[in-house]
Amino acid sequence: MSLADAATRPHDRLRDYLAEDMEAVNALIRTRMASEHAPRIPEVTAHLVEAGGKRIRPMMTLAAARICGYAGEDHRKLAATVEFIHTATLLHDDVVDESGQRRGRPTANLLWDNKSSVLVGDYLFARSFQLMVETGSLRVLDILANASATIAEGEVLQLTAAQNLGTTEAVYAQVIRGKTAALFEAATQVGGVIAGAPEAQVTALARYGDALGMSFQIVDDLLDYGGASGAMGKNTGDDFRERKLTLPVIKAVAKAGAEERAFWSRVIEKGDQRAGDLEQALRLMQSHGTLEETRDEALRHANDAKAALAQVPEHPLRDMLSELADFVVARVS
Amino acid sequence: MSLADAATRPHDRLRDYLAEDMEAVNALIRTRMASEHAPRIPEVTAHLVEAGGKRIRPMMTLAAARICGYAGEDHRKLAATVEFIHTATLLHDDVVDESGQRRGRPTANLLWDNKSSVLVGDYLFARSFQLMVETGSLRVLDILANASATIAEGEVLQLTAAQNLGTTEAVYAQVIRGKTAALFEAATQVGGVIAGAPEAQVTALARYGDALGMSFQIVDDLLDYGGASGAMGKNTGDDFRERKLTLPVIKAVAKAGAEERAFWSRVIEKGDQRAGDLEQALRLMQSHGTLEETRDEALRHANDAKAALAQVPEHPLRDMLSELADFVVARVS
Repeated sequence: MSLADAATRPHDRLRDYLAEDMEAVNALIRTRMASEHAPRIPEVTAHLVEAGGKRIRPMMTLAAARICGYAGEDHRKLAATVEFIHTATLLHDDVVDESGQRRGRPTANLLWDNKSSVLVGDYLFARSFQLMVETGSLRVLDILANASATIAEGEVLQLTAAQNLGTTEAVYAQVIRGKTAALFEAATQVGGVIAGAPEAQVTALARYGDALGMSFQIVDDLLDYGGASGAMGKNTGDDFRERKLTLPVIKAVAKAGAEERAFWSRVIEKGDQRAGDLEQALRLMQSHGTLEETRDEALRHANDAKAALAQVPEHPLRDMLSELADFVVARVS
Repeated sequence: MSLADAATRPHDRLRDYLAEDMEAVNALIRTRMASEHAPRIPEVTAHLVEAGGKRIRPMMTLAAARICGYAGEDHRKLAATVEFIHTATLLHDDVVDESGQRRGRPTANLLWDNKSSVLVGDYLFARSFQLMVETGSLRVLDILANASATIAEGEVLQLTAAQNLGTTEAVYAQVIRGKTAALFEAATQVGGVIAGAPEAQVTALARYGDALGMSFQIVDDLLDYGGASGAMGKNTGDDFRERKLTLPVIKAVAKAGAEERAFWSRVIEKGDQRAGDLEQALRLMQSHGTLEETRDEALRHANDAKAALAQVPEHPLRDMLSELADFVVARVS
């Protein structure tokens, strides 16, 4: 991607607009993830917190607060809080995912990482908790406590839904709400709350965050099957090989006759996958139009996100959040 | 143990005295650990929360609040909070410990348990967070956020201290503060805070909890070497085999000459343990008197705990907390 293209991406424009705030947030993250007593903590978190990551979630908190006219500095603490919660869940997801991927062949390094991932994740949760307490807002604490519960519940639900052909679209929605949308929702909502915005604006910001998160995750799951066209690429099929019940598959299973159902049962439930099975799965999804249906669902959520923004004040950052919703679905349109 | 003996144990008397409160706490625990969406959660927590466990920590919160004259019901929420945090750390410790114990031979069941342990632990943390927010006390939230950070930091520190002969008594103190004393301290302190007790009483309750926790963990570590007498039993030597740097060993290493140091280096640092090594370790600890020194340190903490209680109002529960401190060290006296 050229520099000119990069400059047009809405998250880059958000980052530029919020540069001063984000610098303060990054400084806060560095300070708070340090540990006087346990130097391993910054070692483990450094590569996660410093490198990579678009910092979308903290920018959503900052943007929400600024759109609502906030002039204080507590939104930075909340932005760091949100990033810490995100990083902690990534660390714990590593334990959950690595166990599956390297089943039967753990290395000492893997085991060391498991321990560190669990405990350093707990440390980041605790640090995020301290940061939000510092804002002195019980409403903020309530929102983030509820989001934390939804996140953990969704992750557990995902465990039990895996490889289960009986997984419904409602269960899928619950899983991705926990996996992605709950923290997006809390990120924007607490921005409005800390700004003391009117209730209608706070609700609209929460709706925006939730809808953007849902759209984002559905797009991610769709791209794992090559997008709406089902075009195979080098990153296609990871979810298929891991036998995950994502929306394109759930929709295809719902429309399957006896023969197709036997196919899904073999490859997803029994895990007996052979050469050509991914291609066959894509053919079935294309024949039932479930890739397009999945894309339409992502578009609906993106439109919901943009519609919610009509309830918040006009602001350059509001426009960028709106464009962010378009950008998320542009990957599959 | 006969029923008559059981009736004299201070935690049994606490349980009887606090029966009504504890019934409410147990009901709260059952209600709040349920999950509408993820039935696996109560499956995993049930055996931890329902079975076993003396519920010492929630009883400390209840007792502290009642001693300070509290007549409300929020102390029950805090008691359940404290038990949830304790249960969550147990779940995460399982992941950390099981990886080490079964190194190289993980079972599918172990891996399934790892996932569930991490995520259900996170769920319990989130639920505990919701419960404390319901009390509406920012001071309580601050105390429990700080305790959570100390717990996680201590656990990480323990990872890096393991098998490291350079571990000092100061590092050991930090580790067991995180492992045990921080939650004991927070448990009693929030009881005083929710009761609106004067600052001197709140501080005294915190000191009691911390000192009791330190004493409790030192006794536990000493019993792993058979107590002050170093008498071998069927449960002796687990820490030795796991190459943990606990207080009796740290003190013995500090007094070791070159030859003894080579022994500790071989068995603890290199993990090259042979028949008779545990007996040799006990002989070295006995010759330097480190088992007695460790017992004396546990006794000092127990005395600190009892001394702190002089600052709180007279109450039958205060006497039971005092006897609890005696009971903890009676196991090694």
